[in-house]
Amino acid sequence: MSTLQAIKFDRENRTLLVLDQLLIPFQEQYIPVHSVADGYSVIRKMQVRGAPAIAIVGALSIVVELNYILNGGTTQAFYDIQDLLSFKKTLLQRINFLVTSRPTAVNLSNAARDIASIIEQANTSVPALYQAIYDYTIKLFDDDLTNNYKIGSNGADFILNDLQSQDYKGGFSVITICNTGSLATSGHGTALGVIRTLWQRSKENRQAKKTKTDRSVPLYSDAWLDHVFPLETRPYNQGSRLTAFELEYEKIPATLITDSMVSYLIDLIHKRKLKDYSPVKYIIVGADRIVSNGDTANKIGTYQLATLASAHPEIKFLVAAPKTTIDLSKATGDDIFVEERPANELKTVTGGLVTGGLVGDGDGDGDSGKVVIGKVRVAPESIAVWNPSFDVTDHALIDGIVTEERVLVKNDGEFRLD
Amino acid sequence: MSTLQAIKFDRENRTLLVLDQLLIPFQEQYIPVHSVADGYSVIRKMQVRGAPAIAIVGALSIVVELNYILNGGTTQAFYDIQDLLSFKKTLLQRINFLVTSRPTAVNLSNAARDIASIIEQANTSVPALYQAIYDYTIKLFDDDLTNNYKIGSNGADFILNDLQSQDYKGGFSVITICNTGSLATSGHGTALGVIRTLWQRSKENRQAKKTKTDRSVPLYSDAWLDHVFPLETRPYNQGSRLTAFELEYEKIPATLITDSMVSYLIDLIHKRKLKDYSPVKYIIVGADRIVSNGDTANKIGTYQLATLASAHPEIKFLVAAPKTTIDLSKATGDDIFVEERPANELKTVTGGLVTGGLVGDGDGDGDSGKVVIGKVRVAPESIAVWNPSFDVTDHALIDGIVTEERVLVKNDGEFRLD
Repeated sequence: MSTLQAIKFDRENRTLLVLDQLLIPFQEQYIPVHSVADGYSVIRKMQVRGAPAIAIVGALSIVVELNYILNGGTTQAFYDIQDLLSFKKTLLQRINFLVTSRPTAVNLSNAARDIASIIEQANTSVPALYQAIYDYTIKLFDDDLTNNYKIGSNGADFILNDLQSQDYKGGFSVITICNTGSLATSGHGTALGVIRTLWQRSKENRQAKKTKTDRSVPLYSDAWLDHVFPLETRPYNQGSRLTAFELEYEKIPATLITDSMVSYLIDLIHKRKLKDYSPVKYIIVGADRIVSNGDTANKIGTYQLATLASAHPEIKFLVAAPKTTIDLSKATGDDIFVEERPANELKTVTGGLVTGGLVGDGDGDGDSGKVVIGKVRVAPESIAVWNPSFDVTDHALIDGIVTEERVLVKNDGEFRLD
Repeated sequence: MSTLQAIKFDRENRTLLVLDQLLIPFQEQYIPVHSVADGYSVIRKMQVRGAPAIAIVGALSIVVELNYILNGGTTQAFYDIQDLLSFKKTLLQRINFLVTSRPTAVNLSNAARDIASIIEQANTSVPALYQAIYDYTIKLFDDDLTNNYKIGSNGADFILNDLQSQDYKGGFSVITICNTGSLATSGHGTALGVIRTLWQRSKENRQAKKTKTDRSVPLYSDAWLDHVFPLETRPYNQGSRLTAFELEYEKIPATLITDSMVSYLIDLIHKRKLKDYSPVKYIIVGADRIVSNGDTANKIGTYQLATLASAHPEIKFLVAAPKTTIDLSKATGDDIFVEERPANELKTVTGGLVTGGLVGDGDGDGDSGKVVIGKVRVAPESIAVWNPSFDVTDHALIDGIVTEERVLVKNDGEFRLD
């Protein structure tokens, strides 16, 4: 399958390539990561982003560095491979350095803490320690990917069964926000993973209907996904830059809209004034954190989207995230602290330069082969800005939480997450 | 008063200066308009925008051209000032040319039609014809400005009385979308005119409270506007580029937010988690067209904003527009055709270039004195886009329509606009 891979790790040769997300959607360019220093650099520059992806790239950068060292290479840090104690000390320093690339990235800190614990417990040999770190990292990678496929499958099952129980027939559309796909994870994605799986099922369904013989494919002949609307997701445009790119890459029919067009789009389709699109039946989003009662912190704009969905009884609002996202230490969303991001993130916009007096067209369309990333300011320099990094969606507005285990729904209006 | 003037017409010398809105908010630069050709140019390049402003600049460009001709000047068009019939013919050709600068701008077409009718009726002399066109144009300008001040005053009266009847005490905030200010009109603005007048009243109120003697100023001592939240207004960013500029210019306290932050902002202020701001009590928007039942076409995002407001009984949603915006030829919003705009308007963003390899900083902060406008693309080149120019807000979501005559409210859920 030609699915997008943002992290390419060759298990035989133990080499790592990371897709440079700063050049997406303009150019697909992979950066070779040979060392912890390289890993630090791609994370710090945000060439890789998304909580799971950062942790995996960080851990893999340790693996490739150790592989290199154990095969006789030298790095800027001096490892004494003959002396386990000295080796452990150097390695711990390297990991502490790695974590400073994105100090607030929880998944990266967790992985670093786990690897530090493996290092501390190591008491046989340097190669054995390397093997233990390798096994841990591969499991981290594989588990994330496996979980994403399970999230995709659980979400798709839930949706197609739900439509069947409604006796819904025909194509349907979904709306999503931010980027929750291959670019943010080990692959496949969470909310976008559900969409990928739904699209795959729709294709298989069409194929099965054509041949009418292959009964091994479950037939959901009455309803199928046929369109996705990614929101551009201001202020950082992850929807227009990344999700639109992923949907195009996988040839999933998609139409980009601004965050302000949701209500009107839903209405016009409903009134049959936009006949090119099927009715919007689901809004599927990711999550940064889900607390005990189901209140969900996610990219700013998610709460507003859920509020809009709640005005439409025919639309269900689903959150898709791995179980590690659930934080039972907090009772409700009110306990979540609202972090604010820099004002300039809202006042400036970064993209492929189209015009601005540069030599070459620089618009990233490939004809010159040269991509120039530019930044423009769209607001007065001194205007005050409110730029919260996320918002909190009340569980009352959420119809289901899709994890790798199952889809949680409410009983008497309450989720039971524990 | 230091109010912003986008159109500066000197009635004594009959000279015209138009603020170049393409450089806002980076630089305040006025373009001299000497002729119909200059008027055509500033309208076509969108250096002036906003339906009333375009019509006024177009008409004034005819006035300055005729003034020049009658004082012995020559232009690229040959006017024979000795022959009324020939003069009329030339002038009509010039006006037909002027209208092609923005063929869909209704106000400009209407003004051109009115002036053409004045020309056809002229039967005494060239100077008399010039005087008739001058009088018409000045009236167009003055009426628009007078109406805007009346809209501002009617809206402010309505709001302050409404708050008094609620027994509301303290500061309050308002939200607005797009640009409906001095930059779009002859001056003061419509929705932004209401906000300007509210702010002026708040200042007078504070002053009157201080001196406690001047009873000529109406005292609304219990409630006052203290903050404005302009939405950035994707995809063309009129809110961040223009409204934020106007609010800063007039020193009205303002905080810019994205279109996706409305719900969360209102909630956090309500829950006293954002203590810097007063509660949002009103959302005030302009209108492109208001039909018989009160359904209102306005900038895309307005309908969604109204939907969000309707979830908050403490927030009223007001439309502010001159009576000429009311179109009784259509019964409901369903009769309004939805125009779509070019996809690139959504996929690219234009602003003051900050980085992109250019010589000089070009960020418009005045230190180099050189503003470079750049354009960046933020989405894949081939992704499909839905980009409606406006949306339609159901009258059920509108609490009041502010015109220069009065504030229309609903009886039994229905507006009576005729």
